[in-house]
Amino acid sequence: MALIISLTPILYLCCFGLFVSSVLSAKARHFKWEVEYMYGAPDCLEHVVMGINGQFPGPTIKARAGDTLVIHLTNKLHTEGVVIHWHGIRQLGTPWADGTASISQCAINPGETFVYRFKVDKAGTYFYHGHYGMQRSAGLYGLLIVDVEEGKKEPFQYDGEFNLLLSDWWHKGVHEQEVDLSANPMRWIGEPQSLLLNGRGQYNCSLAAHNSKGSGLPACKFRGNERCAPNILHVMPNKTYRLRVASTTALASLNLAIGKHKLLMVEADGNYLEPFWVNDFDIYSGETYSVLFHTDQQPTDNYWISVGVRGRKPATPQALAILHYQSTTASKLPTIAPPQTPLWNDYSHSKSFSKKIRARLLGSQNPPPITNHRRIFLLNTQNRIDGYTKWAINNVSLTLPPTPYLGSIKHGFSNAFDQKSPPDSFVNTYDITRPPSNPNSTYGNGVYMLKFNTTIDVILQNANALNANVSEIHPWHLHGHDFWVLGYGEGKFTKKDENKFNLKNPPLRNTVVIFPYGWTALRFMADNPGVWAFHCHIEPHLHMGMGVVFAEGVHLVGKIPDEALSCGLTGKMLRSKTHN
Amino acid sequence: MALIISLTPILYLCCFGLFVSSVLSAKARHFKWEVEYMYGAPDCLEHVVMGINGQFPGPTIKARAGDTLVIHLTNKLHTEGVVIHWHGIRQLGTPWADGTASISQCAINPGETFVYRFKVDKAGTYFYHGHYGMQRSAGLYGLLIVDVEEGKKEPFQYDGEFNLLLSDWWHKGVHEQEVDLSANPMRWIGEPQSLLLNGRGQYNCSLAAHNSKGSGLPACKFRGNERCAPNILHVMPNKTYRLRVASTTALASLNLAIGKHKLLMVEADGNYLEPFWVNDFDIYSGETYSVLFHTDQQPTDNYWISVGVRGRKPATPQALAILHYQSTTASKLPTIAPPQTPLWNDYSHSKSFSKKIRARLLGSQNPPPITNHRRIFLLNTQNRIDGYTKWAINNVSLTLPPTPYLGSIKHGFSNAFDQKSPPDSFVNTYDITRPPSNPNSTYGNGVYMLKFNTTIDVILQNANALNANVSEIHPWHLHGHDFWVLGYGEGKFTKKDENKFNLKNPPLRNTVVIFPYGWTALRFMADNPGVWAFHCHIEPHLHMGMGVVFAEGVHLVGKIPDEALSCGLTGKMLRSKTHN
Repeated sequence: MALIISLTPILYLCCFGLFVSSVLSAKARHFKWEVEYMYGAPDCLEHVVMGINGQFPGPTIKARAGDTLVIHLTNKLHTEGVVIHWHGIRQLGTPWADGTASISQCAINPGETFVYRFKVDKAGTYFYHGHYGMQRSAGLYGLLIVDVEEGKKEPFQYDGEFNLLLSDWWHKGVHEQEVDLSANPMRWIGEPQSLLLNGRGQYNCSLAAHNSKGSGLPACKFRGNERCAPNILHVMPNKTYRLRVASTTALASLNLAIGKHKLLMVEADGNYLEPFWVNDFDIYSGETYSVLFHTDQQPTDNYWISVGVRGRKPATPQALAILHYQSTTASKLPTIAPPQTPLWNDYSHSKSFSKKIRARLLGSQNPPPITNHRRIFLLNTQNRIDGYTKWAINNVSLTLPPTPYLGSIKHGFSNAFDQKSPPDSFVNTYDITRPPSNPNSTYGNGVYMLKFNTTIDVILQNANALNANVSEIHPWHLHGHDFWVLGYGEGKFTKKDENKFNLKNPPLRNTVVIFPYGWTALRFMADNPGVWAFHCHIEPHLHMGMGVVFAEGVHLVGKIPDEALSCGLTGKMLRSKTHN
Repeated sequence: MALIISLTPILYLCCFGLFVSSVLSAKARHFKWEVEYMYGAPDCLEHVVMGINGQFPGPTIKARAGDTLVIHLTNKLHTEGVVIHWHGIRQLGTPWADGTASISQCAINPGETFVYRFKVDKAGTYFYHGHYGMQRSAGLYGLLIVDVEEGKKEPFQYDGEFNLLLSDWWHKGVHEQEVDLSANPMRWIGEPQSLLLNGRGQYNCSLAAHNSKGSGLPACKFRGNERCAPNILHVMPNKTYRLRVASTTALASLNLAIGKHKLLMVEADGNYLEPFWVNDFDIYSGETYSVLFHTDQQPTDNYWISVGVRGRKPATPQALAILHYQSTTASKLPTIAPPQTPLWNDYSHSKSFSKKIRARLLGSQNPPPITNHRRIFLLNTQNRIDGYTKWAINNVSLTLPPTPYLGSIKHGFSNAFDQKSPPDSFVNTYDITRPPSNPNSTYGNGVYMLKFNTTIDVILQNANALNANVSEIHPWHLHGHDFWVLGYGEGKFTKKDENKFNLKNPPLRNTVVIFPYGWTALRFMADNPGVWAFHCHIEPHLHMGMGVVFAEGVHLVGKIPDEALSCGLTGKMLRSKTHN
């Protein structure tokens, strides 16, 4: 019943950044990718996954700030369209390359190729993923690591680096999940069967059976070379390592810890943080962090890296990886039990962490403007429309139109979507502590038209879901921008909460959480011509309507590639012009 | 453990044609259809199915010869394209409405609507189904019944009519089936779990447990109104009924019998037959038949209609429906056991039936030209390409291109597909009795360019598959035409087999079977401008490359709707013209 894994042969993770960086230089980097369904074994159980060039997760892109990425993406699916979103990349000047179906482009047809060409202007930890239907949940994701420009240095030092891409995994296929979520009555997909680290998890067994109390799972058995073998991070004693962590979970909020090792938070969503030490940290879907740690522990032992669920009553075992001190013998498993994830509903732990996050004001990072031009309140509610369970923002549940907004706005199609703007706020008397008194809501696909180059505040207001005493975590992700996180608070936001805003060194992020029954305030400059999704990064929540659309300066957008406009009304327009 | 079904309330099938036909008249018939995934229970187990307007199978279309059907088909799938093929309708003058992705049109994008507008010129029993990926297997199908023109009469009489749409059903979803079939090594999908009659089957139980020997299955229990409750055909004694039967199975060849009732074959694939009596008949995927039967049996009993598998070792129980004499009490199940399907490998039974089929030469049906302008031999083989299992025709395994042929040929895109014609024959020394000596094959997407208005013979030549002593049944379906079935034979076709051709009254069909190790000869006029698939109607076989493409008189094709050309090179052409 012992865990049999060889710690030596799996070297692919080791210090990759160290020897690759020397051959990188600022340039155009070309990739030819094919997306297809294939068999994988994400948690040791064989399952269909979405792969890129036969890999799951997709290939890790390594680039330098200032590089242009040119990804020729060919759709090898049989009947489905596909797009890829480059999460955290602002797509300055290339809004059509944002990879969001119905918003920035038409989905790529089976057999066809779309070329994503965009600049990665800023060093940081990013990832990419499908943004059509629930293809992200199906496994269409990978890491995108942008190093600093040649000759420049990070504002911190390290001897090696590792990447961990976090995801969650269901045994039910995503096509069925989509039908479940759209059914009346809605069938909730439940908690994930497994958590995956770099696409690897272990279902129904424990790597740490020999030293974990009460997991009740038998020890995992490996013969070697299993696709689901655990990640092993090979380290030398007394060094400093950078661990880049990105979460592309469909649902789970997570917490990461490394046994006995403290973690120094240095980067979030591609922006530097004022460094601070933690024992563990929460990471929500859509977020990335870099942490530094010193290999200052007993080098004759190994240590568990553990990742567990937060914010929902967990029904999914912790995911584990091994921090392997290279001085130890090859097969020695950690003798100390894995760190325990904080209690799922210990929100004070989560809030304490979130509130510690501060920007490190270096060259490119500035404090926000001290005033805003417009403030938009977004009430997050769970609703019912004709018996269907939906999520709605200010009582509107987003249904994406067949013609992508970027093209329809640029070309002035007034019939492509609701021309009436969705509301900037919600009724003052709304009781966020109870289920909606009238849970009825409406479908909509209107757009928040933001005046170009104005400062926008968004107050994300959480509320009670349909069931009493339930308010969920929602990580909100903004495309095309980083925003300043001005603050978090409890209950309903009031004018006097402004006084608590951090206007000095709020962190720049592209994703931020709202806590149950709380609010989160953020500010951004509407300075990137394009149309941008802003949505809950929980895949089923977005599927059920939890998002809004911002448009700004679309008249300044350059020539959109025809391929991005080939569907819906813009496709018709382009085709019909031949007859004029 | 008794079967509890009420025979009285389910009247929807009864004599529908009788009272509907009086309100029909030649005209344009408009339909608004939405295709979506939904939950159904095809064989009592709940499963995601493809539905139209919330129905599975899709709605039955009733029309009259000469009518124009106008179907506004909206794709409500989340990420998949969709098309619908109108199986058996020749699409005279409207080849872009044939509903075959990659051949006649671009798949309809999610959220978009395509209008199928075409004439049903000929009375008969037809059906429609998805023709993209394996969407037919997913349940996208329904019946299309065309009555004779107002004031005209069928060449036979009957008092009422019923429809039975036959299909087979797997518990594994089609997306996974597609991955299985495309995997290396290929994973065969196996035999279906259930056979469905009008979309209804009963998994793991038997309707006839009380009078069937050895099925070993427990009796089905129904509380009433189950979506998988058996079909009940309510008849009056001493009448004549027309039973229209269509098979849209993904794999199974079937045989149908009605206990104690003889069947008079009168129509096949929308063409009249010289009537002949049988006790049971085989029906292959893609075929339709009309049979007449007299309700001349003991009217105090009821009778089983049974459908079972032929040509493959069956692992699927017979499907059953009930012929209910209305004089019997409501709950009385047939006292006589269901007819037993002939042994699966009793090919002489099958061949005897096929060879009895003769055209009834009335007005529109003529004997074929007595000579041909071109004869194409098509060798059917199972092959391996780089380890992938494929089916190939003359050593070419069809891979459909992203730009539909109709548009790319009409607009002269020489880079849209292989410009070299696939071969008209195969090497003379090929040994059809053994596995291919060199199983290697090639992918291809070339087209057989047929000179317009010429007479084409096709000799379909069966052969041994990859495993020794295996040769499978393949029902071949031709789009856009009916063909004359000139004859069937054993072994390799030779010149002298021509002497056995029936040139006097061969049946006109759109689908014909090749028997194991045998050949089938057919003839058709290349007189319908367009591009037409000719393929094995077994869905996984087509998925694995078992088809060819014919093109004829494409220069005579009228204006193709832009919507049919919106993808691939034609889409690019239409869009780029705006910049000239």
